[in-house]
Amino acid sequence: MTLTISGMDDVSALLARLPDGDAAAAAAWAAREPRLTKPAGSLGRLEDLSGWLSTWQGRHPPRLDAPCARIFAGNHGVAALGVSAFPAEVTVQMVANFQHGGAAINQLCRTFGVALDVVSIDLDRPTADFTQGPALSEAEFAAAFQAGIDAVPEGADLLVLGEMGIGNTTPAAALACALYGGEAADWTGRGTGVEGGALARKIEVVAAGVARHRGLPPLEILRALGGRELVALAGATVAARMHRVPVLLDGYVVTAAVAALKAVRPDALDHCRVAHVSAEPGHRRLLAALGTEPLLDLGLRLGEGSGAALAVGLLRGALACHNGMATFDEAGVSDKG
Amino acid sequence: MTLTISGMDDVSALLARLPDGDAAAAAAWAAREPRLTKPAGSLGRLEDLSGWLSTWQGRHPPRLDAPCARIFAGNHGVAALGVSAFPAEVTVQMVANFQHGGAAINQLCRTFGVALDVVSIDLDRPTADFTQGPALSEAEFAAAFQAGIDAVPEGADLLVLGEMGIGNTTPAAALACALYGGEAADWTGRGTGVEGGALARKIEVVAAGVARHRGLPPLEILRALGGRELVALAGATVAARMHRVPVLLDGYVVTAAVAALKAVRPDALDHCRVAHVSAEPGHRRLLAALGTEPLLDLGLRLGEGSGAALAVGLLRGALACHNGMATFDEAGVSDKG
Repeated sequence: MTLTISGMDDVSALLARLPDGDAAAAAAWAAREPRLTKPAGSLGRLEDLSGWLSTWQGRHPPRLDAPCARIFAGNHGVAALGVSAFPAEVTVQMVANFQHGGAAINQLCRTFGVALDVVSIDLDRPTADFTQGPALSEAEFAAAFQAGIDAVPEGADLLVLGEMGIGNTTPAAALACALYGGEAADWTGRGTGVEGGALARKIEVVAAGVARHRGLPPLEILRALGGRELVALAGATVAARMHRVPVLLDGYVVTAAVAALKAVRPDALDHCRVAHVSAEPGHRRLLAALGTEPLLDLGLRLGEGSGAALAVGLLRGALACHNGMATFDEAGVSDKG
Repeated sequence: MTLTISGMDDVSALLARLPDGDAAAAAAWAAREPRLTKPAGSLGRLEDLSGWLSTWQGRHPPRLDAPCARIFAGNHGVAALGVSAFPAEVTVQMVANFQHGGAAINQLCRTFGVALDVVSIDLDRPTADFTQGPALSEAEFAAAFQAGIDAVPEGADLLVLGEMGIGNTTPAAALACALYGGEAADWTGRGTGVEGGALARKIEVVAAGVARHRGLPPLEILRALGGRELVALAGATVAARMHRVPVLLDGYVVTAAVAALKAVRPDALDHCRVAHVSAEPGHRRLLAALGTEPLLDLGLRLGEGSGAALAVGLLRGALACHNGMATFDEAGVSDKG
């Protein structure tokens, strides 16, 4: 299936034809799960996870033979406004660190058997300063969305999404605020560690961006306030749905990037689970607005897809239980009296 | 090191000589962690976990070469009072299921590379009904504690603790109530799935046990209200400390079993982490009373050590990051501006 985006209309058209989950696979999962040697429901969210994987992979038993992680990297005009504790050149330095295997995401992907690739998008061309105009032109938006689509590998059975971009919790906060309302301060946190006056400045930048682009439809909000890596994350999420690949979303930036899809179509993220809630306080608020519960709550605030890669361990455990446990009949165990 | 228990005094003597964590290993961890290519603290509780493993393994870098799970099984006099949704013969049936590899814990241990063994303690001799007298005699208590000590394998570098015993959320609730006060109903949940009149009956049994044995010192409370597998869990936890083996505690039953140790000596569980908070509501209350935060909150309520085995995945991720990440210098990444 070739998915080609040349403008905003193509994105809207794609969103109009998202497939549903596979009912036969879901039914096969539901027929097996209650026969396993445990009290009904006693594996809690692990049960949901194996059923979700089965439904969106469109097969039963679900498997994780080819989980892939894609980390999108971009640079941001607003970084020049002093919204981050780290200098903008760290984006390209960290991409090199990913390529050499030295970052947290490399260790986590290796631990959980996930194939990692990093997609840098025009790191030498930061987005425009969104307090002055849209961060991306229509053509730039389409190119970034396409980069996301093209990054979803054929044959993947899980997509782990992450990001790198110095300053990118600022567009994340602006997107969340523009989509869900409230004050900029409600959505803006310390990111990599800004404090005091720099945090106040970051809140002002978020507020100015939201005020500047008020009243746009969701995908235009994403173009006006997002960065290239955020738009690519949205593109990859849509492409994964078209290719029947379940998605693990990482932290605040990834969740904010895909929130616009749900604003367009309420079921657009049904093939996704949010892997963790970040220490960035806006993320918990955003998850509540999206009506979703994270799998992990460990105070992570690194990005890179680190929380999502970590949650692959939970998926492996969930699949092992659903696929490998004995049934009451097989084990000769008495069912509930 | 041979640890031999012949009575309650030997347990008290052992608790008086628990070793501290290894300061040199902790210092080596603390010297490396801030040099890794990430904002300080951005891996949240993963940082705590690698530091904790280093401290209690007494080595740096910490490793998980030989993680072991031990599941203790016992039967309970109170099971005859109708406190469980499953018949008592399920304990021995599930032990056979563990031995044949068909239970959830088998799948989870295989997934995360944990060596599993099951220790059945006198399944043909349920404890006495604790509403009528102490569940265990002094000699039975000592034997069960010794079984826990003897089950800690030489050379383990992590101990995952779990349990199986139809009816054993009843002694867990009674222990928690006796140690921390409050009403029996505050500590008593549905266990494997009791409802309505059976739940009311379970609460009455817990209340009667607590009333019967009021005012005892903590280890005597454990003897009066605990079962053999609970006492063994306490023994294994103490032995692990003596042998420098960090411990992952599972759900309500395991936590209640070791709570008496902390009541004797506030630092007795410093070498332990609680892997998850159970759907059994008393567990959340118990963790608050112990002043500890669980690693996972996934609505599990199976026991068997399932939550603790699942959390081994988090430990593997934490170690991979601490041990494998590049430093700022190695990667040529600019530190915080």
